[in-house]
Amino acid sequence: MRSNGRGSDQLRPMKLSVNVNKYAEGSVFIEMGDTKVLCTATVEEKVPPFLKGQGKGWVTAEYSMLPRATQSRNQRESARGKLTGRTMEIQRLIGRALRSVVDLRALGERTITLDCDVIQADGGTRTTSITGSFVALAIAISKIAEQHKLPAFPITDYLASVSVGVVNGEPMLDLNYEEDSTAKVDMNLVMTGGGAFVELQGTGEESPFSRQELNQLLELGEQGIARLIEKQKEALGPIALMIGSGQTGRGV
Amino acid sequence: MRSNGRGSDQLRPMKLSVNVNKYAEGSVFIEMGDTKVLCTATVEEKVPPFLKGQGKGWVTAEYSMLPRATQSRNQRESARGKLTGRTMEIQRLIGRALRSVVDLRALGERTITLDCDVIQADGGTRTTSITGSFVALAIAISKIAEQHKLPAFPITDYLASVSVGVVNGEPMLDLNYEEDSTAKVDMNLVMTGGGAFVELQGTGEESPFSRQELNQLLELGEQGIARLIEKQKEALGPIALMIGSGQTGRGV
Amino acid sequence: MRSNGRGSDQLRPMKLSVNVNKYAEGSVFIEMGDTKVLCTATVEEKVPPFLKGQGKGWVTAEYSMLPRATQSRNQRESARGKLTGRTMEIQRLIGRALRSVVDLRALGERTITLDCDVIQADGGTRTTSITGSFVALAIAISKIAEQHKLPAFPITDYLASVSVGVVNGEPMLDLNYEEDSTAKVDMNLVMTGGGAFVELQGTGEESPFSRQELNQLLELGEQGIARLIEKQKEALGPIALMIGSGQTGRGV
Amino acid sequence: MRSNGRGSDQLRPMKLSVNVNKYAEGSVFIEMGDTKVLCTATVEEKVPPFLKGQGKGWVTAEYSMLPRATQSRNQRESARGKLTGRTMEIQRLIGRALRSVVDLRALGERTITLDCDVIQADGGTRTTSITGSFVALAIAISKIAEQHKLPAFPITDYLASVSVGVVNGEPMLDLNYEEDSTAKVDMNLVMTGGGAFVELQGTGEESPFSRQELNQLLELGEQGIARLIEKQKEALGPIALMIGSGQTGRGV
Amino acid sequence: MRSNGRGSDQLRPMKLSVNVNKYAEGSVFIEMGDTKVLCTATVEEKVPPFLKGQGKGWVTAEYSMLPRATQSRNQRESARGKLTGRTMEIQRLIGRALRSVVDLRALGERTITLDCDVIQADGGTRTTSITGSFVALAIAISKIAEQHKLPAFPITDYLASVSVGVVNGEPMLDLNYEEDSTAKVDMNLVMTGGGAFVELQGTGEESPFSRQELNQLLELGEQGIARLIEKQKEALGPIALMIGSGQTGRGV
Amino acid sequence: MRSNGRGSDQLRPMKLSVNVNKYAEGSVFIEMGDTKVLCTATVEEKVPPFLKGQGKGWVTAEYSMLPRATQSRNQRESARGKLTGRTMEIQRLIGRALRSVVDLRALGERTITLDCDVIQADGGTRTTSITGSFVALAIAISKIAEQHKLPAFPITDYLASVSVGVVNGEPMLDLNYEEDSTAKVDMNLVMTGGGAFVELQGTGEESPFSRQELNQLLELGEQGIARLIEKQKEALGPIALMIGSGQTGRGV
Repeated sequence: MRSNGRGSDQLRPMKLSVNVNKYAEGSVFIEMGDTKVLCTATVEEKVPPFLKGQGKGWVTAEYSMLPRATQSRNQRESARGKLTGRTMEIQRLIGRALRSVVDLRALGERTITLDCDVIQADGGTRTTSITGSFVALAIAISKIAEQHKLPAFPITDYLASVSVGVVNGEPMLDLNYEEDSTAKVDMNLVMTGGGAFVELQGTGEESPFSRQELNQLLELGEQGIARLIEKQKEALGPIALMIGSGQTGRGV
Repeated sequence: MRSNGRGSDQLRPMKLSVNVNKYAEGSVFIEMGDTKVLCTATVEEKVPPFLKGQGKGWVTAEYSMLPRATQSRNQRESARGKLTGRTMEIQRLIGRALRSVVDLRALGERTITLDCDVIQADGGTRTTSITGSFVALAIAISKIAEQHKLPAFPITDYLASVSVGVVNGEPMLDLNYEEDSTAKVDMNLVMTGGGAFVELQGTGEESPFSRQELNQLLELGEQGIARLIEKQKEALGPIALMIGSGQTGRGV
Repeated sequence: MRSNGRGSDQLRPMKLSVNVNKYAEGSVFIEMGDTKVLCTATVEEKVPPFLKGQGKGWVTAEYSMLPRATQSRNQRESARGKLTGRTMEIQRLIGRALRSVVDLRALGERTITLDCDVIQADGGTRTTSITGSFVALAIAISKIAEQHKLPAFPITDYLASVSVGVVNGEPMLDLNYEEDSTAKVDMNLVMTGGGAFVELQGTGEESPFSRQELNQLLELGEQGIARLIEKQKEALGPIALMIGSGQTGRGV
Repeated sequence: MRSNGRGSDQLRPMKLSVNVNKYAEGSVFIEMGDTKVLCTATVEEKVPPFLKGQGKGWVTAEYSMLPRATQSRNQRESARGKLTGRTMEIQRLIGRALRSVVDLRALGERTITLDCDVIQADGGTRTTSITGSFVALAIAISKIAEQHKLPAFPITDYLASVSVGVVNGEPMLDLNYEEDSTAKVDMNLVMTGGGAFVELQGTGEESPFSRQELNQLLELGEQGIARLIEKQKEALGPIALMIGSGQTGRGV
Repeated sequence: MRSNGRGSDQLRPMKLSVNVNKYAEGSVFIEMGDTKVLCTATVEEKVPPFLKGQGKGWVTAEYSMLPRATQSRNQRESARGKLTGRTMEIQRLIGRALRSVVDLRALGERTITLDCDVIQADGGTRTTSITGSFVALAIAISKIAEQHKLPAFPITDYLASVSVGVVNGEPMLDLNYEEDSTAKVDMNLVMTGGGAFVELQGTGEESPFSRQELNQLLELGEQGIARLIEKQKEALGPIALMIGSGQTGRGV
Repeated sequence: MRSNGRGSDQLRPMKLSVNVNKYAEGSVFIEMGDTKVLCTATVEEKVPPFLKGQGKGWVTAEYSMLPRATQSRNQRESARGKLTGRTMEIQRLIGRALRSVVDLRALGERTITLDCDVIQADGGTRTTSITGSFVALAIAISKIAEQHKLPAFPITDYLASVSVGVVNGEPMLDLNYEEDSTAKVDMNLVMTGGGAFVELQGTGEESPFSRQELNQLLELGEQGIARLIEKQKEALGPIALMIGSGQTGRGV
């Protein structure tokens, strides 16, 4: 039995609060159970050096945990003077995942930076960051679309992420910290509204897993992601209609 | 006329939400107008090397702003690889101020770290951090007092902080960002419940100030601090009675 | 048609040269086509702080590319003063993968560090590093087993790694650099001798992929890994018999 | 009784030696008792990026202590790889203080960097650095004024700094190290020739202080600063006449 | 008696393998006994800032040891976050030595970077790096000369390097690690084909040395260098004829 | 003709002022013409980790230039966050040179750190640092000898250093900055009172040098060093008698 009486294919209670920051072009506070992440999207009218003059934009992400987001206090990476490998790995993943559903040419020479700051951590902070920052990104892009003539709305599909794993021999959806730390297999999925895979990262450090277990986990994940995307649509309201529409966005 | 029709001797609307973090020994979310800071207190049963074996505890603080706490995005200090001088100056100030009202010997060989993370910034983030973290500190210490026999309750007096400044030729209390950036004189006060000064930092970079102006600013500040301390008492509830009482805290 | 007339399910020419370093406890020079990696295994009779006194060992890895391993020269990470996110991600992956087939308790309080230095890079450096360093690890552990009474031979199964991807619409095995840079889907597999998954990392940044494409890629990968493990067995000679045997290794 | 029989309102013996460095545009060796600081002013015909094209100059400062300026040897900040918070705080203070008496527009697009290197430390190194570097700055600016047509002499007033504190219950001027380390209240003042405050930083970490104590300390400080400014005038000779004169400086 | 029965004036067995890297403009794998260094030369059509617009090129070097090039594993400098003093000293020496035989004006506005990566170390890694990278440099420059009209072949003379030392009271040529670590005097020589000194670095940390000992060591070194240069000529083949010829190189 | 009418075999005017720092165990302010270096010696009753428990001491050095020691201002290494290769090379040289005349076993388990801070630079800062810090070291060791029973006075011989070079085709002693920057050959010598070589570092980056030129330079250097050592003896007074005496030092 999972905590809160959750079934093995159930998500934790989820809440998306939009426009929580008065300065950011897009912002979302996402809660998945006790995991809470503030996602802000910042639009800048410039691109990194490697993209200059190509008529394309860029989407990137940064990820951080507050020192007391966790049970015992973690040293700040600013005090250590460098990012951990874990942080780098996660922020590269978030950026790569979001770019997979953005038409960078339609975005034009702009950079959108998603900042994912974990206020409280109880498992699944990277997947929660992706799900939340997709919404912040969509809000920020809708603001660009209101102000500028874009050739098409640059977001081509929905995107969400969830973890799955084998805990006590049973495949489970959306692991919290306690489950995650005892899981034999741990997998993070990023999928589109169309049901395709964007990222698939499975690890069996404690115990390798079979093709059959993989398939069970993928099915659990697919269902979970479909539900996350419904929640994203609700939170986005009228902006939701623009995603994947190919419209210019002027009418949002 | 100030924004929101505030008088020159009025504080911004203030809100203190306690116990907002499920892991920290003490936590407060403090809002002064649009300035919002999350303060968590972490208790560790050890002291820094320079205090080992002296039977005394330590109180220290760290301060950080989320990248989009401000109008334009700031680079993370973790990505820069080092803290700015401003951050170091602020976190040294917070720690020093809090220690002035803690009996480190009564605390015993423990370290309490206050993390002040600015979620949104609209002026006065350092003074707000001090006012909020005093409350988080009191909660954390009350938990120690419940579990351990202490010789006396280690907090000897209340402590709060506010900014004052001369804006458009007029002395004003609790400056927001817009006021702060046009102020000719800018002063931060940290004072105790007993009305004594703990820190006094005044700067007239744009225009030096006279002894008379100083006196006007100090009077505004004293009144503001008295009101902040009333709010702290409300937020602390029964813990408030322990502060400065010299009691052992067992009965909290 | 692939370069060198390779079929889509064929590995590149592979060569494993063992004991190439006169100091290291285990060493392998692995060549997969034009990708060349020197893997050395260093045994130290100590463990990292988090494992002290638990009677368990540790296996970890470091990865680096020589500056001119690539078409244009890369700045050294030592000169930059920090590791890139890519390097950290890869060395975490190598260590995690190797640990999945090592019984850390049977290893005893020892640390084995695998250094994977890419002498020349033509795609697949991380998978080649895993395949090569497994062999260096086995050699190093066989030397421990010769000198010390171990409760059992600590390597529980074979381990190899290969990349697969969709290039020009066709699933392919063991991508070289040119193929990798035009692949729509890119996946790295780490599998055991028993055919189970240890790591599965698929990315569809350019174009999300379907469940069917995933299955085709997994089949290509499984076959490739089986052939890699045959090569590892040849290179290891008599040591090969100890792997997964549970024997103490004294008799190697 | 203070060491050397000093009265509580007396400065330590003070010596200002000008033009001690053959390369710097301005240089001063200042001694306040056993505290000795070398201040050099460097003029560069460029401004920091944030000021480019605004027709304004910049004045900034750096501060450092030699490793054996103090009783026990301090590790070099260059060897530690970063500046301490204390150093950053002090050099920000020195720069801010000096800018308060410089008309940056009259200076033109130039940067003047004051380097304050503490050769020997016996309390009051930051205040001594300000007092000395004002003189080095004035010399350097007089050289610019000789060579370039400036709209007006850019230094608008004198500036000096001193510490005051409560030691053994008694307010005292210009604390040496021994006094400083036992002081209950410690305050640094920066004031202009006109008697206005530029910086006021008081700390009662050990014991909060009252409004009355503050007033006593301010009076002691005002007198001390007046005497420091007399000494600066003597050291500057004919340059002294230009300060605050608004003249173009051609005639110096 | 030396290991392998070497006489005191004999070099270790030496092997130069050219063009071992498929990407680099010049590459050499040099073996002096058990010391093995990979030297690659990279040509870039730009110069460092301090040389811009002067019509001159630049030659520079970087040096690194693989972690297990030595008997016990060394921490990577990339993981430490900075270069050691030893590495900096060696790479400055290699660059300075090579530049002494390059006509930077004839080279034109290009930078050649020599990367010397020590694969295995058994004494004399810096001298071996110089001897090997001279050959890699010559190959790279011959490629430039084939493609561009140069005013003259930019290499003006041969260059090689060897160590000499006093071991057990006897002057010896080309010390291996064991000899080097017991040597009383240790000297590195860099000389030209014409027999002149480019660098002479002698250290008698354990025991100062006399003028007579110096002379004996210089004679041993001169002979060794002459033999090294013969080997370089063999390895370079037809390119050898261009060195010091002053010809334009078009005909190589 | 050299500046100040110096002959090619003449040292610049030299001044050694001892005991200039009130805290350091030994201190010297050395002036060679316009090159001025403050050398302090710090004694600590501990040794670095690699020497623990061996009954031996350690002597080490640090070197730094004040930012405006030179014609144009240099960025501080503390602000850059790391030491330059030049600094590391120099401080390694100073430490190595001094250790060559110290009996580390007679010193006992103590570390002496020589800090060489260049106040003004006009060529020869590294050789001047060695000559000056030898004196500071001798003073510091004489203080140890006064307080502790040592088996013998730990300094076994005198030590001084000077530069020589070929300027405008002529060998010259003790180059100033202007001479040094036009020298074709540049050599630093460190020699003992007994006339033996401790370090010999010659560089002919601009133009290789012959055996004959080397001999001329060595003769100039030998004479210069003899004169420097006479000056050291004068400055040391009675301490001079202990050097190389093998006496216990109690009677100093």
